Amino acid sequence: MTRAPNMPAPIEEEWPAVCLVRPQMGENIGAVARVMLNFGLTGLRLVAPRDPWPNVKAQNVAVGADRVLTAARVEWRLEDALADATLVVAATARPRGMEKPVWGPREAADKLRAAMAAGERPVVMFGPEAAGLESNEVARAEAILTLPVNPGFASLNLAQAVAVFAFAMADARQATSVPAWFHEGDGPPATHEELENLFAHVEAELDHGRFYHPPDKAPLMKRNLRAIFLRARLTQQETQTLRGVIKALTIGRGGRKKDDA
Amino acid sequence: MTRAPNMPAPIEEEWPAVCLVRPQMGENIGAVARVMLNFGLTGLRLVAPRDPWPNVKAQNVAVGADRVLTAARVEWRLEDALADATLVVAATARPRGMEKPVWGPREAADKLRAAMAAGERPVVMFGPEAAGLESNEVARAEAILTLPVNPGFASLNLAQAVAVFAFAMADARQATSVPAWFHEGDGPPATHEELENLFAHVEAELDHGRFYHPPDKAPLMKRNLRAIFLRARLTQQETQTLRGVIKALTIGRGGRKKDDA
Repeated sequence: MTRAPNMPAPIEEEWPAVCLVRPQMGENIGAVARVMLNFGLTGLRLVAPRDPWPNVKAQNVAVGADRVLTAARVEWRLEDALADATLVVAATARPRGMEKPVWGPREAADKLRAAMAAGERPVVMFGPEAAGLESNEVARAEAILTLPVNPGFASLNLAQAVAVFAFAMADARQATSVPAWFHEGDGPPATHEELENLFAHVEAELDHGRFYHPPDKAPLMKRNLRAIFLRARLTQQETQTLRGVIKALTIGRGGRKKDDA
Repeated sequence: MTRAPNMPAPIEEEWPAVCLVRPQMGENIGAVARVMLNFGLTGLRLVAPRDPWPNVKAQNVAVGADRVLTAARVEWRLEDALADATLVVAATARPRGMEKPVWGPREAADKLRAAMAAGERPVVMFGPEAAGLESNEVARAEAILTLPVNPGFASLNLAQAVAVFAFAMADARQATSVPAWFHEGDGPPATHEELENLFAHVEAELDHGRFYHPPDKAPLMKRNLRAIFLRARLTQQETQTLRGVIKALTIGRGGRKKDDA
């Protein structure tokens, strides 16, 4: 697929790796690969998958992320899958009474980004569907990742758990670059002179239409109407549009002469 | 299911509602219901689902969240699904060149929590698999939700997109309170039904005033005008005021009969 020159570059990060421990359904492995690449992660490891590997169901679900599957490292023993890691995190819903730090996704992402900046190679383990990681597997981890799930319905699909973690990693990547609010390249904002001209226009037409009654309420009514349009943060173009709207609404009713405007 | 006395209470929040627009696969609808309840959301709406409803595949995938499916509201028209909303957010990957605020999941969650604390009823729209929301659907929203996806592989599964949003809502539940967004003590916000009536009123009058020329530009011109008023976050009172404004501006010009309105 060619990319237009002004398109942002693809994001592919080898770390943190995602390690699925004893995964059962191929569909879930494929969904994990897909959502990892959605959020720019490419390092997938499988420990003792239940079904034969490579797996057609996984490939069908991975859609365009099949190369994450192809590149996945498959090991039979957990210790082999973790051998090159310098920092291991265990995703688990249940409190284990272990003396380990417990991180939410956001905190985990911040910690892992900091660790990677210092040259670390983190691996995050996710347990099999339904059962989750065993205690002796969790025991290998430096820290625990817990998602803020509903205590009344905590059983999260495997790929959904990875999705939340992968999102948190991507979110932490761009942490500071929050999208600006309004006026993003849709033209210059209106000046207050333009706004005053708009208000004067609509107020004159409303006066002609006997909108302001009783007359002593007119200042308050004008303020309320201004408040609406000020809050909308109009662009110059929009100010012109609204003046066109007023003209279209009042055309043909007669009364005010053109040079009143 | 009984709960041990020291278990934390289940979390079930009716708002924000999740609105799936023209969803195709039952499996995805079921996965959405499941992950919503995983993160404590219960308000599901479906607009024109492709397959017959209720749907066995959806039920199979929802596992323990089938009551979210059972309680789902099904509508054929998007405006009916949004009628009681006071704040609509459109999840869309593509920049649309519309004058709307663009939020990441975390920012969206903060804004929606603040809005709900002020009594608002937010609805978040997700488009169909592959195609996503159409421009005229996005045009109904006050704000856009965008996920920080990999530009090289941006196509996110529908349920994964909802998972990330639902997680962000749950994560913000435990975060500190942010300042409220708009509508601070100036009366109840307008519902989308009231907004649609306002838009219909002004559009009919503008049509009568021959505002829309050339005619093929009418949809774009309508979207631009909507964007202004959606951005202003009108209260019910202000919606009434603007309808009074339109009446005052058009009075006496003749043409449209009263019962056209």
